[in-house]
Amino acid sequence: MANAMLLPVLISFLIMPFSAMALTQDFCVADLSCSDTPAGYPCKAGVSAGDFYYHGLAAAGNTSNLIKAAVTPAFVGQFPGVNGLGISAARLDIAMGGVVPLHTHPAASELLFVTEGTILAGFISSSSNTVYTKTLYKGDIMVFPQGLLHYQYNGGGSAAVALVAFSGPNPGLQITDYALFANNLPSAVVEKVTFLDDAQVKKLKSVLGGSG
Amino acid sequence: MANAMLLPVLISFLIMPFSAMALTQDFCVADLSCSDTPAGYPCKAGVSAGDFYYHGLAAAGNTSNLIKAAVTPAFVGQFPGVNGLGISAARLDIAMGGVVPLHTHPAASELLFVTEGTILAGFISSSSNTVYTKTLYKGDIMVFPQGLLHYQYNGGGSAAVALVAFSGPNPGLQITDYALFANNLPSAVVEKVTFLDDAQVKKLKSVLGGSG
Amino acid sequence: MANAMLLPVLISFLIMPFSAMALTQDFCVADLSCSDTPAGYPCKAGVSAGDFYYHGLAAAGNTSNLIKAAVTPAFVGQFPGVNGLGISAARLDIAMGGVVPLHTHPAASELLFVTEGTILAGFISSSSNTVYTKTLYKGDIMVFPQGLLHYQYNGGGSAAVALVAFSGPNPGLQITDYALFANNLPSAVVEKVTFLDDAQVKKLKSVLGGSG
Amino acid sequence: MANAMLLPVLISFLIMPFSAMALTQDFCVADLSCSDTPAGYPCKAGVSAGDFYYHGLAAAGNTSNLIKAAVTPAFVGQFPGVNGLGISAARLDIAMGGVVPLHTHPAASELLFVTEGTILAGFISSSSNTVYTKTLYKGDIMVFPQGLLHYQYNGGGSAAVALVAFSGPNPGLQITDYALFANNLPSAVVEKVTFLDDAQVKKLKSVLGGSG
Amino acid sequence: MANAMLLPVLISFLIMPFSAMALTQDFCVADLSCSDTPAGYPCKAGVSAGDFYYHGLAAAGNTSNLIKAAVTPAFVGQFPGVNGLGISAARLDIAMGGVVPLHTHPAASELLFVTEGTILAGFISSSSNTVYTKTLYKGDIMVFPQGLLHYQYNGGGSAAVALVAFSGPNPGLQITDYALFANNLPSAVVEKVTFLDDAQVKKLKSVLGGSG
Amino acid sequence: MANAMLLPVLISFLIMPFSAMALTQDFCVADLSCSDTPAGYPCKAGVSAGDFYYHGLAAAGNTSNLIKAAVTPAFVGQFPGVNGLGISAARLDIAMGGVVPLHTHPAASELLFVTEGTILAGFISSSSNTVYTKTLYKGDIMVFPQGLLHYQYNGGGSAAVALVAFSGPNPGLQITDYALFANNLPSAVVEKVTFLDDAQVKKLKSVLGGSG
Repeated sequence: MANAMLLPVLISFLIMPFSAMALTQDFCVADLSCSDTPAGYPCKAGVSAGDFYYHGLAAAGNTSNLIKAAVTPAFVGQFPGVNGLGISAARLDIAMGGVVPLHTHPAASELLFVTEGTILAGFISSSSNTVYTKTLYKGDIMVFPQGLLHYQYNGGGSAAVALVAFSGPNPGLQITDYALFANNLPSAVVEKVTFLDDAQVKKLKSVLGGSG
Repeated sequence: MANAMLLPVLISFLIMPFSAMALTQDFCVADLSCSDTPAGYPCKAGVSAGDFYYHGLAAAGNTSNLIKAAVTPAFVGQFPGVNGLGISAARLDIAMGGVVPLHTHPAASELLFVTEGTILAGFISSSSNTVYTKTLYKGDIMVFPQGLLHYQYNGGGSAAVALVAFSGPNPGLQITDYALFANNLPSAVVEKVTFLDDAQVKKLKSVLGGSG
Repeated sequence: MANAMLLPVLISFLIMPFSAMALTQDFCVADLSCSDTPAGYPCKAGVSAGDFYYHGLAAAGNTSNLIKAAVTPAFVGQFPGVNGLGISAARLDIAMGGVVPLHTHPAASELLFVTEGTILAGFISSSSNTVYTKTLYKGDIMVFPQGLLHYQYNGGGSAAVALVAFSGPNPGLQITDYALFANNLPSAVVEKVTFLDDAQVKKLKSVLGGSG
Repeated sequence: MANAMLLPVLISFLIMPFSAMALTQDFCVADLSCSDTPAGYPCKAGVSAGDFYYHGLAAAGNTSNLIKAAVTPAFVGQFPGVNGLGISAARLDIAMGGVVPLHTHPAASELLFVTEGTILAGFISSSSNTVYTKTLYKGDIMVFPQGLLHYQYNGGGSAAVALVAFSGPNPGLQITDYALFANNLPSAVVEKVTFLDDAQVKKLKSVLGGSG
Repeated sequence: MANAMLLPVLISFLIMPFSAMALTQDFCVADLSCSDTPAGYPCKAGVSAGDFYYHGLAAAGNTSNLIKAAVTPAFVGQFPGVNGLGISAARLDIAMGGVVPLHTHPAASELLFVTEGTILAGFISSSSNTVYTKTLYKGDIMVFPQGLLHYQYNGGGSAAVALVAFSGPNPGLQITDYALFANNLPSAVVEKVTFLDDAQVKKLKSVLGGSG
Repeated sequence: MANAMLLPVLISFLIMPFSAMALTQDFCVADLSCSDTPAGYPCKAGVSAGDFYYHGLAAAGNTSNLIKAAVTPAFVGQFPGVNGLGISAARLDIAMGGVVPLHTHPAASELLFVTEGTILAGFISSSSNTVYTKTLYKGDIMVFPQGLLHYQYNGGGSAAVALVAFSGPNPGLQITDYALFANNLPSAVVEKVTFLDDAQVKKLKSVLGGSG
């Protein structure tokens, strides 16, 4: 339709009709120097392509620890581009015999995609305490509903790797053992609210660096 | 599983795998010194247990007023810990003969729990104008859907007390009489939009401190 | 404004202008005979005042059990009137020495209001594992953010009672001990994902009726 | 890029890569024969262009009534295409001297656009009871926040027409006078919760068809 | 009920019961001088009636351009009063032969109301690529679901005008042609991702001021 | 704390306190035989671990087509377990020279994780038409905000594979070329709303199977 002779005119006029339209919020890259809000961080100015890109999941996490596993997050704190977009990610490296201990994500559901090895994963429903468990191979996915206790461990003969995606930019991670034993919650209280034996509580407090 | 000899090693290594995980937003205690946003106040830094605790509902409100009732709020303005959590509370004290006049909460549903006495409560649906009313005794609960006109009054022979919870941290409270008669909305306008008589409007404007 | 002579005319005409307005959704009392949806149950027809009222929290729960506590819910399953309204409630009865064991609500924040006695309550943040704890007396309130581990126990010399409100109609309740020990999750898996000793796991599985 | 010789091949192959993608929910036209849910009606099958189109606002409403005004809704009940889309509309016709009486929309904010005549409109904030009022001419818009009392009346010498849009498919409409006087709410209760005189209440109950 | 002799007393006491209730968020007029957040701008202080009113849609947009159309927005950037209210608006002026080219609103559904002339409008569903199209006359409305490609053009013999409302305060506007041809996206990339011919791409890049 | 002698008693009593708690909604696996709702499908009964697991992304999609690419979805239609959980996934296989043409997801943001090869990806902002583009290698992630036009193509010398996660269970996929050329939208309309030449439109309509 556009006739070549009209082009010079077209350039200047075509852009005009919408020129008043500024301030659109296509995205809101987090300005981590500001205070967070219930809906996420204020938006930073001066965004570039690098804000939507993250390289931090490319390298394996260091699994030379006792749980033989590493969780490398790409949450809003590491990857500010996901702020306000309802999504984030993490990388899971689990060496042979390794485990991601029982935990919840208070603020997101999780979708796990196995990229290497074999992972045994499970979650537990709330009132009925039903266990849902699966052995996952390369290419398999499993979903863990928001807030429910779940775990993953390496179920095979080689290292396992997974990408996990979350339904929010800041899912949180509450590891039950850390919540109970890696702080100053008094042993007597832990025992009262969990029915665990005193010796067991003190042993794990010692292991995980807790006091009291 | 954890062998005692491994404990010292475990302490240092177990914490490492997740050490990059900061900035999680488990909660967002309001920093009331900042501007509010559509999703609530920015989060304050330096939170402690006291931020999640409120003592202000423990004492009875002063019902020595003509409506013989008092509403003591624990909204985000009084109890910043509820910011972003989708909940807040208030205490209702209604002396014998007292009333919480017809009102709405524009931004939350309400759940009322009677802790002392007898309360007559009702709400009115919108298009059909149906009245839903109940006599509530100690231990009873009633729910009032968001934005609908409702009222409570003491229906018994002693003082009544209730705890009310709201489905948002800042429910708002619009008392119909105050909206009509406690401001400078001209009497002629009030009459036009309510069909009330001029004498009635002027009487209540005088009672409630309105002008015009 | 309304002149008495106009009244008969007014009756018939005034209602007309809005007569086409039906199907308004002021509320959506759950029809529990239908399948749930991600946003709650379909709405039942034929609603009356009783649908917005619940008596089930008036009586004390039976605390003659080993935890010496009872949780009486008024969630959507018991109180269909809260469906879609973003709120629900429960009653907590905790006898002397009783405890509501460590648990989470995956789908709501909780606001607790003490109506009798003394309650010691605490919650634990996720990544930092910080403990927030308070001793609560009659009239005090405390808020527990969604999805975080928390507990309550009777901290005084008499029975304690509390009303708890939730920021959703179906908050869920996942008690850590039940999730671990009251089902068929194999002991070996429990031990792997919690670092608990085999004897401890088997003891609690036996106590809580678990197998495997 | 696409070479003409490749076209026959291209046709058959290009569609294949995404062929498994069904069940996308671009929209969800209401099936009004089903029960509503808290998020809106179930989606009807067999949608056509007519489902996204509504003619019902083209004709003026009948203002031959005492308020000399008509509200013609295009809510989900009349225009099922808006189901789940977060928007709806209505047409306002206000004859000279006419008024849309004091009311709220419990479930949506309102944006009013004057297409003919002059409208005086106002709303009242909740706790401070501040009145925000404007005289609106053809082409002007005004926004009324969700749940707040507001009114519109013809402020000029000719008929006024406005299009109003709502931030939800089912905004509701609670007219204060109808809620108080057009049902069986007993006069004594109305008087108690509004401080109106008995004669005033009975007069308006009579006018609006209420009983009790 | 209110006895005239009680009035002076009533004035001072009636206001007391709710005096602690401040900080209610009935609305949140945008403070455009602050950074945006994922839920909208922080609220400005010192609000007046003018903040809820906008005159900018009263005058016709200038259609003396090649598309013979103008979109005049009343989004949060132009009309800060809609911040947080889930609604905004725009005015469409389409001269004879004019067109609003193929576009999407990434962040809102659109409801179009024709106030003058005849508009041909259509949208296209995602996976099935079904076209939904209608000829709209004065008073007709049509709804365009969020994120779907749609267009409007003048289908009659005179200028057309429409008011459009959006289900969010900042809907965004992505015009396909501008996204492809009015920037520095290299022609080779455009061709690769659209199958358009090189000559076509270069012609439109030239027309719309793109480079590369 | 739990004494062995108390165990038989404990078993029967411990479960009692919470026995009334049923109907919790931890998850809502889609019952695809029911009508969808704006919030997702009704929940199916009789859920098992298999409902949260999906194997369909394990195998490479068939890229023997002209775009040399395949998108294999794990949306709610293929993987009902994600219903209501705010997340879904897909697998991208792009052979050498292959491309995922310009498209949007109307109902979700996208997070892409490269598992093999090199992908060139970009998106375009709305009002400013800014291009954000990156070359992604194995392990890199990029996020594409909801509703914005974006594309991916193989930028390396071998096949590329990516897992993509979405911030919703039913993101939709609108490929611009398919929306324009793979249906019965008349060529004259396409030309009017895109400024493309008639020959170009007819060529691509022929390629993509469109008519008109």
